Parts: sequence; C-alpha cells; structure tokens
Amino acid sequence: MSSQHADRFADDPAFAVHAGGKLTVRPTRSITSLADLALTYTPGVARVSSAIAAEPDLARDYTWAPRAVAIVSDGTAVLGLGDIGPVASLPVMEGKACLFSEFGGLSGVPIVLATTDVDAIVETVVAMAPSFGGVNLEDISAPRCFEIEARLRERLDIPVMHDDQHGTAIVVLAALRNAARVVGRPLGDLRVVVSGAGAAGVACAKILLEAGVGDIAVADSQGVLHTGRTGLTEIKQWVAEHTNRAGHAGSMVEALAGADVYLGLSGGSVPESAIAAMAPDCIVFSLANPVPEVDPVMAARYAAVVATGRSGEPNQINNVLAFPGVFRGAIDAGATAITEEMKLAAAAAIADVVGDEVRADYVVPSPLDRRVATAVAEAVAACAREQGITR
Amino acid sequence: MSSQHADRFADDPAFAVHAGGKLTVRPTRSITSLADLALTYTPGVARVSSAIAAEPDLARDYTWAPRAVAIVSDGTAVLGLGDIGPVASLPVMEGKACLFSEFGGLSGVPIVLATTDVDAIVETVVAMAPSFGGVNLEDISAPRCFEIEARLRERLDIPVMHDDQHGTAIVVLAALRNAARVVGRPLGDLRVVVSGAGAAGVACAKILLEAGVGDIAVADSQGVLHTGRTGLTEIKQWVAEHTNRAGHAGSMVEALAGADVYLGLSGGSVPESAIAAMAPDCIVFSLANPVPEVDPVMAARYAAVVATGRSGEPNQINNVLAFPGVFRGAIDAGATAITEEMKLAAAAAIADVVGDEVRADYVVPSPLDRRVATAVAEAVAACAREQGITR
Repeated sequence: MSSQHADRFADDPAFAVHAGGKLTVRPTRSITSLADLALTYTPGVARVSSAIAAEPDLARDYTWAPRAVAIVSDGTAVLGLGDIGPVASLPVMEGKACLFSEFGGLSGVPIVLATTDVDAIVETVVAMAPSFGGVNLEDISAPRCFEIEARLRERLDIPVMHDDQHGTAIVVLAALRNAARVVGRPLGDLRVVVSGAGAAGVACAKILLEAGVGDIAVADSQGVLHTGRTGLTEIKQWVAEHTNRAGHAGSMVEALAGADVYLGLSGGSVPESAIAAMAPDCIVFSLANPVPEVDPVMAARYAAVVATGRSGEPNQINNVLAFPGVFRGAIDAGATAITEEMKLAAAAAIADVVGDEVRADYVVPSPLDRRVATAVAEAVAACAREQGITR
Repeated sequence: MSSQHADRFADDPAFAVHAGGKLTVRPTRSITSLADLALTYTPGVARVSSAIAAEPDLARDYTWAPRAVAIVSDGTAVLGLGDIGPVASLPVMEGKACLFSEFGGLSGVPIVLATTDVDAIVETVVAMAPSFGGVNLEDISAPRCFEIEARLRERLDIPVMHDDQHGTAIVVLAALRNAARVVGRPLGDLRVVVSGAGAAGVACAKILLEAGVGDIAVADSQGVLHTGRTGLTEIKQWVAEHTNRAGHAGSMVEALAGADVYLGLSGGSVPESAIAAMAPDCIVFSLANPVPEVDPVMAARYAAVVATGRSGEPNQINNVLAFPGVFRGAIDAGATAITEEMKLAAAAAIADVVGDEVRADYVVPSPLDRRVATAVAEAVAACAREQGITR
C-alpha cells in the first residue's frame, strides 16, 4: 500500500483504517503442495464441477456462493452524503462487508455499479446472481430503490433486501417495542409521526403498520402524506392510502402536536417547540447521521425515551443489529426470499436480547453485542421454515 | 457446513477440500470496539467517501477495488468439461481466486453469469467494473470469448485478460523459449503445428508470431487453416491470413510431417506415426487435461522435450505461472490495459526463472515456485511503465 496521501490525512484515523482497503479474499485452505494444487484447482476441481453439473443442489455444499452476499450500490444515496457515485461509495460497501463477516460469518462482496438506470441495475444483478447466496441493496436513491428491489425479488430465488429500507425498519421496530414497554404503552395505542418519505421512512411506516402501531403520519418535505395530495410517486400514494387515519394535512410539525413518537429519517432540524408539543412520555428517535434532526439533549427534556443513530451513545439505532443476522438466518434456512414475517421475527429477536433489562437508555442492544446476530439468525431461519419458503 | 453429501464423496479428497467453498471475504482489520466500528463504518467511513468523491484517485489507496480481480465466466467452456453452466463452473473460479491470493496477493472474486449473450456479458461487466481493479475472463467459449474480450478492453480502463487465451499463450511461449534452448534452435527456425483453433490455440499462434517463430500452422477439426478455406469465423480467417506460410491445406497430421513443434490444445488423440514423422529433436507440448492428445511416454520416444498440462509431472504448462503475476504487475503499475508487450515480458520472465538450469525436463518452473509471480509482476509492471500506459 503506497502512502503518498498518508501525510495529508494523518490527523484522521479513519484514513489509516482504510489504507489499502478494508477487505481481502482468502482461500479457506492453504495451497502449499502440488497435491493441494491438484485438489483445489485442476484436475481435482473438475470432479466437483462435474458433480454439480449433474446435481446442481450440490453447489450449496461445495461452493462459497450460498454464503456470499453481493452488496450492490450505485452510490446515489450514500449515508447523508447523497449521490457521490459508485467509486466514492466503495468504503461504505466495504464497511458493510466487514460487518457481514464479523457478525454474520458471511462473505460480503461490494458490487458498485457504473449505472443508475433501473433496467440496467436489475439486469446486471440478475446476470451475476448465480455467484451469490443473497443480494443486499445499499444506498440506492428513492424511488428507484423500491422498483429495483421489487423486480429483483420477483426475478431471483435468493434473499434480496434493500438494507436502507428494511434493516432500518427492523431495528426501529425493535427499539419502539422496547420503548413502548418503558413508557407502559401497547404499540396499538401509539400515534407516530415519521419525518421522511424516502427509502427508510416508507419501510418504517410499513413495518410499524404490520406491527399494529395505532396511527402513523408520514411527512416528506411538502408536509404530511394524505390522499388529498396530488403528484405523489407510486409509493407515496400507497403510504397516503394506508396511513394517516387522523387525516393530518399540514406540516410535519403540526402533526407532531400531541403525537407519541417522532421518528426522524430526513435530516434537517426540528424546533424545540414542536418536541415540547408532543404528548407526555413521548418517544423521540432522531436518526439522521451524523447530525440528528432533534438534539438529543434537548429531546431528553420532553421525551421519556430518546434514540439516535450516533455511534457510542445509548440507544444507537444501527442497521448492524439486523442485516448480518437476517441474511445469515435466511441463508442457513435456504430461504428463497426475505418475507415481512421474517423481518418482524428479526425485530422481535433484537428486542428480546434486551429483555427484562429494558430501560429508557437501553431499548436496543449495543451494536457489538454478539448475541444479537445469532438470535436474529435463529428467529429468521425458524420463520422461513414455518413459512415453507426454504429449498 | 452441512455434510449430508460427505459420505457419498468420502473416497475423493477433492470434495473435502471444497466443503463449504474455497473462499472467504475477511476484514483486513478486526472490529472489536465501538471505536473500530465508528472508523470502519459510520461515521468515519463518510469522511473517506467524501474525500474520494472530491478526488477519485484516492480510491487507489483507500479502497480494496484496485487489488480485487473479477473472475468472470459464463461456464460455457470449462476445462475439458465444456458447457456446464455458471453454477457448476464456480469451483473452478474459486480455485482461480485461491491462486490469485496465494501467488499474486490479489483478491479474486468469482462472478459467474446467468447469460451467454455477448452484449449482456459485456454490459454486465462494464456496469460492475468500478468494483474491481481487473477482469480475468475465464472458460468462455470461442468465438464469443474473442469479441467479449475485445469489447471489454475497448470499454474499460482497467486490465482485462481472457486467461484461457493469454495465460496459456504466455506459459507456452515461456516453455518454448526454453525448449528451443534445450535443442539449440532459435525460435525463428522452428516450424510449429498448433492443434486447436479455439481460445488457447488462436492466442498461442498470435504470441508465437509476435515472438518471431518461423512458421505456424493452426488446425481445427477440419484441418489446417488456410486462406483457401471458406466459412471461417472472423478470428480463424485472421489466423489463416497470418500463419501457414508453407501453405498446408490438409490435415493436422499431414502438417506434422517434418514439423519441429507440436502444440496440442484440442483434446482427442494423435497417432504415434504422426509424432514419429516429426523432425529430429522435435518438441511436443500436449496440453489437453486430464488426458493429453499425445501420450507423454510415447512422445518421449521421438521428442527431445515433452510437456503436458498434468499436475505433478515435469514441464507442467500451468496458467498459474502467468496470471497472478501478470495482473499483479499491471495493477502495481496502475496499467490501463494488458498489452501484447506485457505478455511477451511475462513469458520472458517465466523462462528466465529457469535460467541456466534449463534441461529437457525443466523448461518451465514448478507451479509452486514463488519466485515466478514476483518476477512476472516486476517485468509486466516495468513494461507497462515503459509503454506509458499507467495512470
């Protein structure tokens, strides 16, 4: 690794951690003799390939693909940085692969794409799908991400999940289940305001609906989504039709008055007066990173439970709690998809790791808690088997 | 790794070596603390991604992609097995990745494709190219392999090489240089018959022409290629126009009479009488695997130098002598392509590792000789720099 740039970035340890890249592909067994070579490569490999050609199911046992997950991005919606393109998004995808390895025991392979065209992305992923046991879509901007995920789920018989949507949604639901316990309220009683109708906002609204949350209002930059609005994208129209039973038609701040839960997935900033106007014992999840929409110190003056996306703080809503275990469980079970039920099972498993230790500053486990991925994988695999969607 | 099949394959150690697959993606640095997590992933990763977005060249130092090589196949021409499809070809691609790691210090990533359409393969590889520092095309059938390689070389500014063509050609040229020394003949004096006009046969003919071999006749299953033949593919027409100065128009066996070198890249079998009719001190490279076209024991009764593709025998012509060093050298130099000159430099470097120890049963180094990849990488990188095709 050359270090021609090392001096320029010497004051930021993140660059030292990234020097030379964060990943490497290694053989599982060393090759030190001609006998090793003849078994790993030709002629021995031909016997294994022949056997798989005759009986394709043998690939599950004798290739790495079932345990390799493509981490696919076009770099259009990268963690708060926006559309920075495929090459600049690589460190994020490599980081994701590190977490797949560390927490899921899976091999993540960054696949960043030189196209943002929906058809081209779908065809590219379908073409390379025999190489992988799962597809983690990442940092693809809305609304393209919805169509890409839907079409890939339709075309492929391996687990496909857009993590910005569902990873976030799973961890948010896990945290909300425990936050509701802290304030002594059933989920069905809660009125939630979701700020942001992008990938994460839509997916969170959906999973909260599925989990039985009382009412949900989802706001984009123009205000709360409702059926009287015109010019909505297909997915926002769906959200408008399935949420907002209370009929809010104004701004997100107006909807917050008397609400039980604020879920920030939008960036920007929320005035203190809006948080002050929420219901007593309210819950504030402010997940923009690195700068939350609501200052957590301010939020704590009004809210019973506060969570952010920030590293090293209590109640960190971090996708790493979900995706390694979700893919590992789906792959262990030989699942052909990741269903809504599997996501709900994952959220329950994350919440249950906290268990009776739940308190206002401990509604989700630490991102480093090794019990989480195992619990999630077991719950997800069991759910897949119950649903009968395994090979 | 489940072992439901282990009993069935207990008598073949190749299956034990393949159990669970032969590759794994690992983080280069462990993640054991929240501080590690915050540097490897969010928020630290955002600073690295931002820096690369502003200055894309930083990706060379701070991502893994420059040292990751896609091993791309559609499984249509797998080592003597033929068209077995993408999934069954995976063990071969994984084996190749093992060798990239062991000998080249590079990360090989198997990408097997669910399409055999030339346009689709080209577009898929172009789309995912920002993820990689090089593309090794593998086991793609002729003549599609020629067009796919040519179009990818045109479209991409990273090294692209179809190893079945050029890896084989490089090692054959290295072996022939040393075999010519053994028999005391300059390359320019030799008359060569190449049996096989597929990917390897064509590439070998080309590199031998470039190296100044005296005359070359290339035969397909219909006999020697010559300009009087009709219905030739584009590439065979090219070969017919650039080889066969002697004007052979009959069978491969007829052309062998009085020839100095037999180069078998076709499979099938050559009668003893044909080898017996070659020139004195002839050279027989019979590379079909696992069964050579010419039995090496029989060949040794007539030939001064015999080489095969077989593991564990003297003079094994194995692509592993070329591809790890070729890609490593091209990548180290930041080369935007692998040129003919770089291939010739690689062949010379392989031959030179043998050096003055050359003898009839030692015209190429052992596939395990660790000096080879280093020597090849240095020679290839130096050549790229001389040619001025580096970034």
